[in-house]
Amino acid sequence: MCRTRAVLDIVGDKWALLVVRMLKDGPLRFTELKRAIDGISQRMLTVTLRDLERDGILTRTVRNVMPPHVSYELTPTGRTLREAAAPLLEWSLENLPHIEAARAAYDSRG
Amino acid sequence: MCRTRAVLDIVGDKWALLVVRMLKDGPLRFTELKRAIDGISQRMLTVTLRDLERDGILTRTVRNVMPPHVSYELTPTGRTLREAAAPLLEWSLENLPHIEAARAAYDSRG
Repeated sequence: MCRTRAVLDIVGDKWALLVVRMLKDGPLRFTELKRAIDGISQRMLTVTLRDLERDGILTRTVRNVMPPHVSYELTPTGRTLREAAAPLLEWSLENLPHIEAARAAYDSRG
Repeated sequence: MCRTRAVLDIVGDKWALLVVRMLKDGPLRFTELKRAIDGISQRMLTVTLRDLERDGILTRTVRNVMPPHVSYELTPTGRTLREAAAPLLEWSLENLPHIEAARAAYDSRG
């Protein structure tokens, strides 16, 4: 069994990386995460948050106020994941133009 | 449109990250990649390699010998991706025990 692959099932996931990135400045509520992550569905966000909680990457805190207030926050392990993922996210932003150009060239070759 | 997400469609993918990692020491043939990446199907490797070629991350070289020899090699952009992804891959290996422990604890809470 390839051990890297086992963990990449968790962290080699676009939505998981985006959730972890959004929580870098502190806890957020479900609705705040939903709004911040363009294109994520209610169901995908629910599943992603539950998996990350199960993996010890974030904690879920329920406050018994009306309406109930549920927030998500990185654990210490989650913060180290955020740091490890940062170069890949930066690379992604820097290289989007190159990648789009490469795709256009590839597609025009037919 | 969230630009990070557009690129994470490419690189926030377990198989793509594993292929890029495997090519760090130089070109490999399809069968070598297939053998090195535990659990990847023929079809998934084919699709992953084609997408990475399209995105300018790797090049595909066909040598007209018998049998034909097809190899894959990182481009300069691909090499920067490999470097950017390395911390996440290292994190994954280091944290697999923590994550497995967190999962067991979560699941035992029922």
